Amino acid sequence: MKQFAVIGCGRFGSSVARTLYGLGYDVLAIDEDEDVIQNISDSVTHAVQADATDEASIKSLGIRNFDVAVITIGSDIQSSILITLIVKELGVKYVVAKAQNELHAKVLYKIGADRVVFPERDMGVRVAHNLVSSNILDYIELAPDYSIVEILALKDWEGKSLSELNMRARYGINVMAIKHGAEINISPNALDTIRKDDVLVVIGHNDDVQKLEKKA
Amino acid sequence: MKQFAVIGCGRFGSSVARTLYGLGYDVLAIDEDEDVIQNISDSVTHAVQADATDEASIKSLGIRNFDVAVITIGSDIQSSILITLIVKELGVKYVVAKAQNELHAKVLYKIGADRVVFPERDMGVRVAHNLVSSNILDYIELAPDYSIVEILALKDWEGKSLSELNMRARYGINVMAIKHGAEINISPNALDTIRKDDVLVVIGHNDDVQKLEKKA
Ligand SMILES: Nc1ncnc2c1ncn2[C@@H]1O[C@H](COP(=O)(O)OP(=O)(O)OP(=O)(O)O)[C@@H](O)[C@H]1O
Ligand SMILES: Nc1ncnc2c1ncn2[C@@H]1O[C@H](COP(=O)(O)OP(=O)(O)OP(=O)(O)O)[C@@H](O)[C@H]1O
Ligand SMILES: [Ca+2]
Ligand SMILES: [Ca+2]
Ligand SMILES: [Ca+2]
Ligand SMILES: [Ca+2]
Repeated sequence: MKQFAVIGCGRFGSSVARTLYGLGYDVLAIDEDEDVIQNISDSVTHAVQADATDEASIKSLGIRNFDVAVITIGSDIQSSILITLIVKELGVKYVVAKAQNELHAKVLYKIGADRVVFPERDMGVRVAHNLVSSNILDYIELAPDYSIVEILALKDWEGKSLSELNMRARYGINVMAIKHGAEINISPNALDTIRKDDVLVVIGHNDDVQKLEKKA
Repeated sequence: MKQFAVIGCGRFGSSVARTLYGLGYDVLAIDEDEDVIQNISDSVTHAVQADATDEASIKSLGIRNFDVAVITIGSDIQSSILITLIVKELGVKYVVAKAQNELHAKVLYKIGADRVVFPERDMGVRVAHNLVSSNILDYIELAPDYSIVEILALKDWEGKSLSELNMRARYGINVMAIKHGAEINISPNALDTIRKDDVLVVIGHNDDVQKLEKKA
């Protein structure tokens, strides 16, 4: 079982730490803020108050025995870079770091980060796509030109079967799942009928998805 | 065409503003920081330096004519609440606000926010799921128990057709798309064959998806 160290437990870091622990993994959470550590201590394996830019102190936590370190300090770019360098040198195999911007990301990769993430930027893209159409509920970019979207059934789809609607021919999209309240049908077939307030999970080319967004 | 006002252009806000503008919408970006405004001015319709807690100044920007306001101030909870109240009272129909935590969200809904978002928390959940298995590339929660994941083809899937693999019976998942380099097949059929480095987009119950994550 992989062991994770999460360094910095702000909004992003604490969510990563709690989720990993919830999935059953060992998680060491480190933050310099005592209150933050108090808050997260019940949701991780170990929570330790420490300044991670102090090499001796994170070395003494046995950081080199962890498979993955996630460095989530966004605002203080200098600390984020220094900590990435330290954990990489101490021998952590896989280091994920949060970046503020492209330049920050470039430096992180140069000094050995294996993956750089931009949580706010990525979620901004998602939320924007959500907003342009009140019927698009969630959104995932599959490839530069293809997306999966959750879409609220249009009024004139109600009471019709998938074969009647013929989404592929009419809109260029495929229906992959239909949600009806708490139920979800992950193998919809031609005879399944759309009901009011159903949410369809569809896959398609962005141009086709955008045409559908505009029908909302 | 809907018009959007984005109030606060930090990492999340600027990404929302740029994406909406890129999708062809009118976007007014407001931030109290002059440098932030300079940076974003070429990526939105209008960028204005103003303190949005000052009712008179955002009123004079004609905020009531906007269809959607997105309030993205995370750190200063008091300002976020005050600004939400002001734009709602000025008559903006749909107000989205970023929250720091559940309590903050509750207050935002009480005073009239139509939607509250938690970008860092949501992305933390995603990244954590990504990390537990090096073959899970992206992740979307469909319902409390069902997810869509992008998964790197396992070694022993290579050269086999979907009908041979029989994913539904073996793993309880459905394959919705197959990515091969830049190509994407959004209507995979039983005879399609998995090649090395293919990425499969699958849908399934979280328990089944987690079993697959653990095979990585
Ligand atoms: N040198 C350090 N050692 C340990 N923890 C640190 C260090 N520097 C910052 N932190 C902690 O990292 C967390 C995240 O840092 P910060 O708030 O600057 O990032 P952010 O990108 O704004 O976070 P968020 O995920 O909330 O958006 C904070 O809880 C902070 O206390
Ligand atoms: N009263 C205000 N009026 C206008 N802009 C404001 C106001 N208060 C804060 N801002 C701006 O909002 C932006 C986001 O605020 P802040 O950095 O506190 O939030 P955050 O949640 O940490 O952001 P990020 O999306 O980067 O994680 C900043 O650029 C800031 O200048
Ligand atoms: Ca943030
Ligand atoms: Ca929406
Ligand atoms: Ca401009
Ligand atoms: Ca991964």
